[in-house]
Amino acid sequence: MSIRKRVPAVAGGLGAVVLLGLAANFAIGGQHYNTPSHSQKSAKAHNVIMLLGDGMGVSEVTAARYYQYGADGRMNMDKLPFTGFQTTWSVKPGFAPYKPDYDPDSASTGTMWATGAKTIDERISQGPSSADTVPGDNLETVLEVARKAGKKTGNVTTAELTDATPAVLDSHISLRGCQGPNDARATCPLETKAAGGPGSITEQTIDHKVDVLLGGGRARFEQPLVAGGTTNVVDYAKAKGYQYVTDATSMEAAKSNKPLLGLFTPVNMTTEWSGPVALQGDGTPPQRCVTTNRPPAEPSLAAMTTKALSLLQGDKDGFFLQVEGASIDKQDHAANACAQIGETVAFDKAIAIALDYQRKHPDTLVVVTADHSHTSQIVGEDTTGNGNPTGYSNNLITADDQVMRVTYGTAGGTARPTAPPSQQHTGAAVPVMAIGPGASAVLGTTDHTDLFGLLQGDALRH
Amino acid sequence: MSIRKRVPAVAGGLGAVVLLGLAANFAIGGQHYNTPSHSQKSAKAHNVIMLLGDGMGVSEVTAARYYQYGADGRMNMDKLPFTGFQTTWSVKPGFAPYKPDYDPDSASTGTMWATGAKTIDERISQGPSSADTVPGDNLETVLEVARKAGKKTGNVTTAELTDATPAVLDSHISLRGCQGPNDARATCPLETKAAGGPGSITEQTIDHKVDVLLGGGRARFEQPLVAGGTTNVVDYAKAKGYQYVTDATSMEAAKSNKPLLGLFTPVNMTTEWSGPVALQGDGTPPQRCVTTNRPPAEPSLAAMTTKALSLLQGDKDGFFLQVEGASIDKQDHAANACAQIGETVAFDKAIAIALDYQRKHPDTLVVVTADHSHTSQIVGEDTTGNGNPTGYSNNLITADDQVMRVTYGTAGGTARPTAPPSQQHTGAAVPVMAIGPGASAVLGTTDHTDLFGLLQGDALRH
Repeated sequence: MSIRKRVPAVAGGLGAVVLLGLAANFAIGGQHYNTPSHSQKSAKAHNVIMLLGDGMGVSEVTAARYYQYGADGRMNMDKLPFTGFQTTWSVKPGFAPYKPDYDPDSASTGTMWATGAKTIDERISQGPSSADTVPGDNLETVLEVARKAGKKTGNVTTAELTDATPAVLDSHISLRGCQGPNDARATCPLETKAAGGPGSITEQTIDHKVDVLLGGGRARFEQPLVAGGTTNVVDYAKAKGYQYVTDATSMEAAKSNKPLLGLFTPVNMTTEWSGPVALQGDGTPPQRCVTTNRPPAEPSLAAMTTKALSLLQGDKDGFFLQVEGASIDKQDHAANACAQIGETVAFDKAIAIALDYQRKHPDTLVVVTADHSHTSQIVGEDTTGNGNPTGYSNNLITADDQVMRVTYGTAGGTARPTAPPSQQHTGAAVPVMAIGPGASAVLGTTDHTDLFGLLQGDALRH
Repeated sequence: MSIRKRVPAVAGGLGAVVLLGLAANFAIGGQHYNTPSHSQKSAKAHNVIMLLGDGMGVSEVTAARYYQYGADGRMNMDKLPFTGFQTTWSVKPGFAPYKPDYDPDSASTGTMWATGAKTIDERISQGPSSADTVPGDNLETVLEVARKAGKKTGNVTTAELTDATPAVLDSHISLRGCQGPNDARATCPLETKAAGGPGSITEQTIDHKVDVLLGGGRARFEQPLVAGGTTNVVDYAKAKGYQYVTDATSMEAAKSNKPLLGLFTPVNMTTEWSGPVALQGDGTPPQRCVTTNRPPAEPSLAAMTTKALSLLQGDKDGFFLQVEGASIDKQDHAANACAQIGETVAFDKAIAIALDYQRKHPDTLVVVTADHSHTSQIVGEDTTGNGNPTGYSNNLITADDQVMRVTYGTAGGTARPTAPPSQQHTGAAVPVMAIGPGASAVLGTTDHTDLFGLLQGDALRH
């Protein structure tokens, strides 16, 4: 089992399909337009927008579609013309050949699409090793390739900016928890700057000089660079030339003459929607979700995406932008269907921004995927006694004015406490959707590592 | 909410994608070949093979792939170049506009792809109505369209031949349970032949003169035509000109000069594999599956598919063949991962037969899909106490020599008996995969009803 897959320019996994000379004229929503030929040897993407719905398996997408738009409705992500499936297995600590782990985390899966290699859970763009605490080899990321090619780069998330998904693009560290300097001193002592290493994820993020950085996690950046010191990573970023913003208004006012660091909350950003945590048995009473949970001082993911595109566009070398809808996963863990669906809808609105940009700039590749599947399942409204799910359920009143039951049962065990413990990821293949040059590479069943080649667009030419 | 969708020749749902002039040259597994242009106005399929994995959601596919071929392995179905997602919601009894049911059964979903219309659960190619017991309007099926166009037709399943999926092609009845004459007299009294109706599913199947009928369910056909009579539906079939076989050897010997009825078991056919039913908590001890469960007198699904193709091929008007891997669903209900995966692998072997035929006859459209998603989920091997799933789990030793945990938790309720009750279907969108003329219609997110237009191939021309 090789951890580094062979990565053709337009990637295809074992048994996957390579389309040669596939040029397409599309009609989407009544509008006709062309994409360039997707031949391996012809046009490649000048700009790349990668949108990652954390934990957004097929079940999560369906639940959001039915709740928000009704059974007959369609989401923005449903408009991407090329669709397929990707396997997401990671590997276990040990020695080569590393053994597969069928139920991965977001650090190992992020490393897959960001670097084209398999690694162990908790690892950020480093290869596998004998144990979690033994650093692996650093792996070049697609953001690093883009920067080398002169492209502008952006990294946007609703989680902490140092969380696994954004971190895999601009950091290399053995454990995902080593987010701020204090965290790294406690958990990754061999990799701190004091020890001659690259430092925590916050420090590496700034050192990478990513042009646009927007998300939560301010508390990580407010940790001191030196133990007990007074200078923190925000100070460090400013010294490196960053403009720093902490609310939506100042984000909107930011100009493109300096790189931008926006940290809008101390930890994860606030979810767009709220609702009750799932309950055992029949579940929560049927209800609609509260859709006004996010304070206006925090920008939406769509607003962050719009701002990032406005700052990145226009460069002769193009750009690479990553946009993560992070709390789909976090609210799936929390067994909260309203918050989970609200984050999926918010992510889908960011996709609309990307698709609108792509329509006006057809040399842009847009890829939408998830890093792993998750717990939530749509089930029937059982009234027969033993037919209820074994876990925790929410009953939601959808756009169709009908009840949809969403259940969570991957954690709770035989003890099964009244309040659901953090639910597990699941191992099902994830959906992948794409439009633009190279997009046909996502057809069929491929592996998450296959994205690495595709996401480089024309950066490979440099 | 319209129950009958607008069905263009190459179907596209709301917001779905229509590809114009998409001609493709494929390289699959190192072999290059062409498919005709998929333009709406150009070549349509002369032959159609529809393969239906009952309950085979993305999770079921992934579990089978990992168990049988390992993390890096690929299934035959992974070779189909065009891939997408389909919504499967049915409607609730009532009055138009009918309200959606997000968690459908195989009768309503079968009616969707076989007729292009939404209907209520339990219904076989009839429209919805105010209650289960009130018959709906009969809806023309894709098999009927094919017969009208002079095509030969076949219907193959591992379930009873009168089970929902095969039934939707050649029968119209208000309740799926009305399989044999006795069943219909008990449950669908308004629809028996004695009452002037079309009769039970067995009788309608024979009256349809389907050229090849292979599966289980002999006991349904051995019910007497008239209450207390001695002539049964097998006798009726013989009188109508059918050759009748009951084991693999006689099936192989059947000739193409007469239509063929093969009924290999009294009820459902025997599963290919066996293994333990899932257990609470940590689940069953890690083990491999027993892969020799099916008696040799019963043909495999692949053998039935091979025989059906040999009998249907060569007609100037082409053919329509349906092949169902039925017990993926039935073993998912039973919370038995070995039997479920064995049926998925057996279904995949039937897909290989279809793909081989398609390669030699590129005017053949092959479509693979599922009628609804199901319960099984791949989770981690938790050892921390509360992290185990709330339901029932199997631990399997895969081709990688690693443990894969598959869990079932959509039924069991708060009582949660030691033996799992029948698990529920789930509402997640299903995978759809296709190759051949028109295949690109499955890209993106469409609805199960959209298959009706695609599956007609060139039959619409007549």
